[in-house]
Amino acid sequence: MNDFLKLHTANAVAQIEGYTPGEQPSDGNWVKLNTNEFPYPPSPKVREAILDELGGDGAKLRLYPDPISKNLRSKIGKFFGLSAENVIAGNGSDDILNLAVRAFSDPDKPILSLDPSYSLYPVLAKIQNSEFIELPFGDSMDIPFEKISSSRANIFFFTNPNAPTGVGFSKSDVERILNEFGGLVLVDEAYAPFAEFSASELVDKYPNLIVAGTTSKGWGLAGMRIGWGLANPDIINILDRVRDSYNLDRLAQAAGMAAFSDNEYYGNLCGIIKDTRDKTELFFESVGWKYFKSSSNFILVTPKNKNGKSGRDVADEFFKYLKSIKILVRYFPNCPAVCDSVRISVGTPEQMILLQNAVKDWISL
Amino acid sequence: MNDFLKLHTANAVAQIEGYTPGEQPSDGNWVKLNTNEFPYPPSPKVREAILDELGGDGAKLRLYPDPISKNLRSKIGKFFGLSAENVIAGNGSDDILNLAVRAFSDPDKPILSLDPSYSLYPVLAKIQNSEFIELPFGDSMDIPFEKISSSRANIFFFTNPNAPTGVGFSKSDVERILNEFGGLVLVDEAYAPFAEFSASELVDKYPNLIVAGTTSKGWGLAGMRIGWGLANPDIINILDRVRDSYNLDRLAQAAGMAAFSDNEYYGNLCGIIKDTRDKTELFFESVGWKYFKSSSNFILVTPKNKNGKSGRDVADEFFKYLKSIKILVRYFPNCPAVCDSVRISVGTPEQMILLQNAVKDWISL
Repeated sequence: MNDFLKLHTANAVAQIEGYTPGEQPSDGNWVKLNTNEFPYPPSPKVREAILDELGGDGAKLRLYPDPISKNLRSKIGKFFGLSAENVIAGNGSDDILNLAVRAFSDPDKPILSLDPSYSLYPVLAKIQNSEFIELPFGDSMDIPFEKISSSRANIFFFTNPNAPTGVGFSKSDVERILNEFGGLVLVDEAYAPFAEFSASELVDKYPNLIVAGTTSKGWGLAGMRIGWGLANPDIINILDRVRDSYNLDRLAQAAGMAAFSDNEYYGNLCGIIKDTRDKTELFFESVGWKYFKSSSNFILVTPKNKNGKSGRDVADEFFKYLKSIKILVRYFPNCPAVCDSVRISVGTPEQMILLQNAVKDWISL
Repeated sequence: MNDFLKLHTANAVAQIEGYTPGEQPSDGNWVKLNTNEFPYPPSPKVREAILDELGGDGAKLRLYPDPISKNLRSKIGKFFGLSAENVIAGNGSDDILNLAVRAFSDPDKPILSLDPSYSLYPVLAKIQNSEFIELPFGDSMDIPFEKISSSRANIFFFTNPNAPTGVGFSKSDVERILNEFGGLVLVDEAYAPFAEFSASELVDKYPNLIVAGTTSKGWGLAGMRIGWGLANPDIINILDRVRDSYNLDRLAQAAGMAAFSDNEYYGNLCGIIKDTRDKTELFFESVGWKYFKSSSNFILVTPKNKNGKSGRDVADEFFKYLKSIKILVRYFPNCPAVCDSVRISVGTPEQMILLQNAVKDWISL
């Protein structure tokens, strides 16, 4: 950074680096298991709805979209048994997380999270110049309830199911946090379609709850950036104040509406994904690799080489081996809590067979 | 706001109201001249590119988009005679304005703007808890150069052509600001396709320049939210730090690429819009209504009733009359500098005839 920019960059931004998302290779020859995408196309209704919005000449695209995505909010609300007033729509759930940071944290209002969790939170906190408090999970991913409730944080970002471990927490765990923690609780539910429980059912009961969700993982629409926040209308109103006026384009709104119109399609496929996940976990058991029982569409697993060794070097070696044969998984070398593991998205049954064969080959190398 | 939220909302956000964009009626029976949209469909290439990205089953939509919109940045750069490293792509230019506020202002780094200008700037400043300094234009929209250069602001948002007056400023005006003002200058060029000059040609010369643009006005794609910032690579790098990782969805990236592949189509239509604008201005002259000579695709005009009176009440009356006959224009009752005027987007020649007839009818009521 040159001297002019050193002088003129906001203090909070001068020191930071941005968030680095998982690799998105531009060629299609990869078995891509690194960013937890849905392994099947979105519902055919999505394509139809986009074609409909496009029309014969794309003329509607010249007009601004509905700034508040009203119909999409209604549709999302209905899906979760809530009203449109309980919903804000975002450009992916990252947009919602960013709005929550801007609306409910500042230099005097710290953010709390658990370690490990979604690595975007500390980046958003730094940009906002907010204090970021991180509490470690217990060894078996136990929630440190007492430390959470005695924290002086203003808002707690709770990833459920957790990323990157995949561990899911129960309704009673979430309610205990909502009852004991004095501030706002944002339950980040990107992976809820693969879990047993969604906090959306608690929105009417708890005035300190925000639930964030996305079509990226469970609806096959990572490419369209559609997310939401669910909360009581007063919270939604505050999030709307800091929202970009036109945060969702016309085709994203149309795609989101259609995705929530085909519950049967997604119900079936999420069932297949969970089944594939469970079978993949059994495979890891069969080779004696440790993993966290997943409530998500990915598995965090600790590779063990043929000498029975695990650790950061072994994980690194396994990650690179997979990459050399065009299988892409996620590895977090800079995250001490999980640097001995790799995170593998649950793909199609066929992709998981490829992965299992790769594991067997690597062990016997 | 309830007591719990009063306590937990960020100080900067607790007091504000969000930005109110122009009305977007959901039914199609309006002559819509209120938000400066392009009155023609986007290039047919846009629809083709979206269909291509959709494919036969929409399967690509399940994958995350390119986080940095690399190909789109290259395409935009090429259009402006710059390289991809000079470009950041945004979810509309509002995204770029927001990033600039976050990257280059904070409680110690004030934002400067002129009055009147785009009314989003003070909203973004408040959310960021930044001081907002506003200098008035002279009566004939003269730029207060000395006051700008002696300002202690960190970044100056300069709308060129201006909104809501439509007045365009010359290369020498912009260079004078860039040379004399000590901080960053963001030239907000949403309306540049209808003007004689774009500061994009100065990006290589001035390390303190950011140029913001959008496909919303000049490319018929307000519905797709595609904007950009042009600057030296060091500035782009800082803006990228605060950018949402996946700020542009797959179809928006495809649409933007296609829009910049049909310069002939847009050159012709922008020519027609400028011609329609100039003819509409002549009409206002013929009825003796004052207006600012526009370099944009809208005209700020001061309605005069049959008794020869102008003013806030008259503008309000005229706005309501147009609305009653389903012609929607923009009126800024809370902006003292322009509350005696209405802002009318330049539509098709046919729409402008309807408007002119409405003006004649209203005068003779």
